[in-house]
Amino acid sequence: MGNKDFERVHRVAIPPPQPFVKSLKNNLKETFFPDDPLRQFKNQPPAKRFILGLQYVFPIIEWGRKYSLEFFKADLIAGITIASLAIPQGISYAKLANLPPILGLYSSFVPPLVYAVMGSSRDLAVGTVAVGSLLTASMLSDVVNINENPTLYLHLAFTATLFAGLLEAALGIFRLGFIVDFLSHATIVGFMGGAATVVSLQQLKGILGLSHFTHATDVISVMRSIFSQTHKWRWESAVLGCCFLFYLLLARYISKKRPNLFWISATAPLTSVILGTLLVYLTHAEKHGVQAIGYLKKGINPPSIMDLEFGSQYLPTVIKTGLVTGIISLAEGIAVGRSFAMFKNYHIDGNKEMIAFGMMNIVGSFTSSYLTTGPFSRSAVNFNAGCKTAVSNIVMALAVMITLLLLTPLFHHTPLVVLSSIIIAAMLGLIDYEAAIHLWQVDKFDFVVCMSAYLGVVFADIEIGLILAVGLSVLRVLLFVARPRTFVLGNIPETRIYRSVDQYPNASNVSGILILEINAPIYFANASYLRERILRWIDDEEDEIKSSGKSSLQYFILDMSAVGNIDTSGISMLEEVKKIMDRRGLKLALADPGGEVMKKLNKSKFIETIGHEWIFLTVGEAVGACNYMLHTCKPDLASPDELKKYSSNV
Amino acid sequence: MGNKDFERVHRVAIPPPQPFVKSLKNNLKETFFPDDPLRQFKNQPPAKRFILGLQYVFPIIEWGRKYSLEFFKADLIAGITIASLAIPQGISYAKLANLPPILGLYSSFVPPLVYAVMGSSRDLAVGTVAVGSLLTASMLSDVVNINENPTLYLHLAFTATLFAGLLEAALGIFRLGFIVDFLSHATIVGFMGGAATVVSLQQLKGILGLSHFTHATDVISVMRSIFSQTHKWRWESAVLGCCFLFYLLLARYISKKRPNLFWISATAPLTSVILGTLLVYLTHAEKHGVQAIGYLKKGINPPSIMDLEFGSQYLPTVIKTGLVTGIISLAEGIAVGRSFAMFKNYHIDGNKEMIAFGMMNIVGSFTSSYLTTGPFSRSAVNFNAGCKTAVSNIVMALAVMITLLLLTPLFHHTPLVVLSSIIIAAMLGLIDYEAAIHLWQVDKFDFVVCMSAYLGVVFADIEIGLILAVGLSVLRVLLFVARPRTFVLGNIPETRIYRSVDQYPNASNVSGILILEINAPIYFANASYLRERILRWIDDEEDEIKSSGKSSLQYFILDMSAVGNIDTSGISMLEEVKKIMDRRGLKLALADPGGEVMKKLNKSKFIETIGHEWIFLTVGEAVGACNYMLHTCKPDLASPDELKKYSSNV
Repeated sequence: MGNKDFERVHRVAIPPPQPFVKSLKNNLKETFFPDDPLRQFKNQPPAKRFILGLQYVFPIIEWGRKYSLEFFKADLIAGITIASLAIPQGISYAKLANLPPILGLYSSFVPPLVYAVMGSSRDLAVGTVAVGSLLTASMLSDVVNINENPTLYLHLAFTATLFAGLLEAALGIFRLGFIVDFLSHATIVGFMGGAATVVSLQQLKGILGLSHFTHATDVISVMRSIFSQTHKWRWESAVLGCCFLFYLLLARYISKKRPNLFWISATAPLTSVILGTLLVYLTHAEKHGVQAIGYLKKGINPPSIMDLEFGSQYLPTVIKTGLVTGIISLAEGIAVGRSFAMFKNYHIDGNKEMIAFGMMNIVGSFTSSYLTTGPFSRSAVNFNAGCKTAVSNIVMALAVMITLLLLTPLFHHTPLVVLSSIIIAAMLGLIDYEAAIHLWQVDKFDFVVCMSAYLGVVFADIEIGLILAVGLSVLRVLLFVARPRTFVLGNIPETRIYRSVDQYPNASNVSGILILEINAPIYFANASYLRERILRWIDDEEDEIKSSGKSSLQYFILDMSAVGNIDTSGISMLEEVKKIMDRRGLKLALADPGGEVMKKLNKSKFIETIGHEWIFLTVGEAVGACNYMLHTCKPDLASPDELKKYSSNV
Repeated sequence: MGNKDFERVHRVAIPPPQPFVKSLKNNLKETFFPDDPLRQFKNQPPAKRFILGLQYVFPIIEWGRKYSLEFFKADLIAGITIASLAIPQGISYAKLANLPPILGLYSSFVPPLVYAVMGSSRDLAVGTVAVGSLLTASMLSDVVNINENPTLYLHLAFTATLFAGLLEAALGIFRLGFIVDFLSHATIVGFMGGAATVVSLQQLKGILGLSHFTHATDVISVMRSIFSQTHKWRWESAVLGCCFLFYLLLARYISKKRPNLFWISATAPLTSVILGTLLVYLTHAEKHGVQAIGYLKKGINPPSIMDLEFGSQYLPTVIKTGLVTGIISLAEGIAVGRSFAMFKNYHIDGNKEMIAFGMMNIVGSFTSSYLTTGPFSRSAVNFNAGCKTAVSNIVMALAVMITLLLLTPLFHHTPLVVLSSIIIAAMLGLIDYEAAIHLWQVDKFDFVVCMSAYLGVVFADIEIGLILAVGLSVLRVLLFVARPRTFVLGNIPETRIYRSVDQYPNASNVSGILILEINAPIYFANASYLRERILRWIDDEEDEIKSSGKSSLQYFILDMSAVGNIDTSGISMLEEVKKIMDRRGLKLALADPGGEVMKKLNKSKFIETIGHEWIFLTVGEAVGACNYMLHTCKPDLASPDELKKYSSNV
């Protein structure tokens, strides 16, 4: 074949060979450094590189230099607003985690300071979260009885926080952030909704003023626990709880309707706490079954580094708790950070954020804090309050510090029922039924994933719900490859374009030629299926031809444009199909195989088996060549040159 | 837009909506019935359907009616040939499984009869296999000491066989045969090679005449066991073993060179056994350290249904053994059956075969047989001997029956070392180093999978090797989706075709337009990656434009032809990309989204967001429209009609 012919007839190219090491390097880079973090270091002098490196680890150096009084005013307001939310929420969530309430305040002091230095989001407000708190409680309570050994429980919670931090930092450092991507949007919607339901139900303990309650989180155990002690329900507590819940929901409703009144919703928890405390103090309601927080120690975080427990028999559970809570809180934090970054059009480096979250939890575990992340509710308030930088986190931390140093006695009479109302109000916002309806409308499988996460969490266990949803999501990916779609292509009238006849009902079949498109890589997982499926398409086509009396099938064109890759099992499958075609008197042609596929077909000599002239650049050219053969001569007699020339000229 | 325009401008179609139930049914059918087993029942009267149904379960009814004397002659020769292989191999493999040697004969009597009635392969010869035997031994020996409690061990082996059969039958009945597909070609090559290595090393026990030996299968334990007892090596045994091994390998070599002399290799094991037995009998070699089989009970299979152990503490191990050995032997049997069916151009229904294998093992476990499948070596001999139908299995079974009834005393003096030689000779043929080299040349990842299976089996444990290889294979599928390839497309000169510039170095970029192809479904697992990657492509392109002084980037075309599906996370990603493009002043266009993708984009209103007129049938049309905009007017001013008209006419 002359060189000139080669150019003209659109021969399908085999990509130029690459040295193995180079292609390996490229693949590793794409897998672990898709965001190309070293981009900014290119072509820079060493001194500049050092500064850029420092900035990379401590973004505060970068934005701190441009910081202005204007910014500070905005951050101050935002910081005070989130502090007024952080204090009651911190206490509530610490109760949820079965930890001393003061830990909620400790956790809103040190970790936000660490994040302010290392984090790259401008809108994230750091704090504890309900789901993480509940998970900690439910996993650690399995091995330690909180009433019998509260100190051990506390120490295990610190240790779990350390492991969560180590996991998060390690994922960031080893650029494995993509693991978080396996928590799909649907999984998170279902999981969050389920967790919110479960957390709300748990709060019935506080609302009804019960003192004994199940540690299990599933709805059946909780309901049994509630209705088995109806005689212990306290109506005073319930009335108070419902009033505050109504107030909080009303405040949220107003803020939603009028976004400039965001502060009503943001300060509602604090005003609830103040009102509730005053009420209890003045009416001595604690004597009528309304439980109060009680004594809170004054002073900032004591060190807890010596309290970490590594040697105990509980270590496996602690590590598991750390890993599960770490990955869940990471997913929430990253998702929240990304959402707000998208609003304000700046960029967040997922792996860098993970390191920041990790450091925040590691330092937190040394200073009497437990698991923190970037909760959605607090960050949304921060954003609405007009924060400009992470300084709002510093302001919040300072406000919490002042509370710790001076104001803790004020919480002595705060009723627990108010805290329960605050949690329920926050949780109800997380049950995103509209998102679930949207999933149902757009993608049924995503809806199934979402519901399995929800039902798993509500009826079984938080971990089971999560495993179920992630398992189903992965199964979906595997099924996509194991059962790829195959389409029969037809000609779109007045063009040389061929498309699926399912999608384009006006596309018409070409007589004597069957064109099939495969929509996934040809891998071991689908090689047998594809062989069966291809043969079935041919059988169907031949049956139809028989019954309609059209001319018999002579050519089979496989459109490979959507086949991203092929492995050795896939190549064997193609070889088998080729043999079967030969035996049935059919001619096999390939259209538009990609670079990777051509490389492997070439190395395995399949190109020689099928003949390079039977591989075409487009389906149109393949059909042209087949039609020429059909109408002028027998396939075996045509010379490769003739074939190629014809296919390019029709 | 008029109806006529619609036709002419190749509007990308949204496939006609399908009722949810119908599409669910279709999906389930494709997943579980890809081979359409009910096809032949279509349009048949009830009586005919009943016969077809019977034939489906018992293929013997179908081929039995056409059976002729001609066929019988061929099957008789083939059957006697494989019997001469089956008897010594059966005894050898039973020893390998730590079971009484007679079980090897029992297992070659009942199971082949069951398969002959239910199986659909004409070439498969049923029998025990080395890998399955070794697995049974290594897994059951973990919980039962064979020397202390041989009866319990025997009963557990029967029970494991029952579970293997139940699993196989269940996989077939529930149409889950595709699970076997997850054992890729590369996995099987590595696994078989590793198992063959391990089995051969185990035979050093027999060759060296040792009586105590490790139960572990890894190479280090075996080597330690051998070299720790050098003083017990028996040279008489070793010399005898090497001679027979040489004879067997020579016979195989001759048969390989001259295929018509296949019988030399096929009968070599039997002649070895006869020669070895005579030698021991005449020289009284058993007194010089050459161990013999000893007493074998006369008579056919005793029933073992009452021996099955369900209540014991060993049940979990037994079930695990059954599942692992069941799936492994299934994979071998199906692969062997398929290979020969391909040679002779007939069809094998994988799920039907599984039911046959399952029934064969269930019945086997009731009649003192242990795990059987269709071993490659025996089936190859069957094929070479010219078998026509499964009658050759019946002939083999009858020959084994005669042996059991009359000839067992003859094996009294058969030396174990001959059996070891037979196993080693069979195993050496399974180490397919040429296949491994081929994998390295064609697909590096497949080679890694293969080697990890091999090394896992050889250095750790049979199960670990298998888990490692299957895990890596699944990881590859997940990575394909998690890190899809993206290509920049360029124009192939003198055409309107756009292809990857990596594959076609002569394809040229279009100034002001960046065209990107995504090569995988857009799922939760890759949505974040793709967002980062798309932005990086745009940054790179803009950097290059800046440095070269070309006209700035204005259009971004996403070629979706290889995007097989999209989920809600993927749609969110597209929405984000669209927002970012808008902010950067770039216009986003899509080319050739498939039916499934269009359906979801439509349901999620993304089509409205981007504008249906910015979705094109081909990349060529998209570039045409963009070029028109670039050179004549601003994008925002063009009416949809104008855009579509232009794109179709250039």
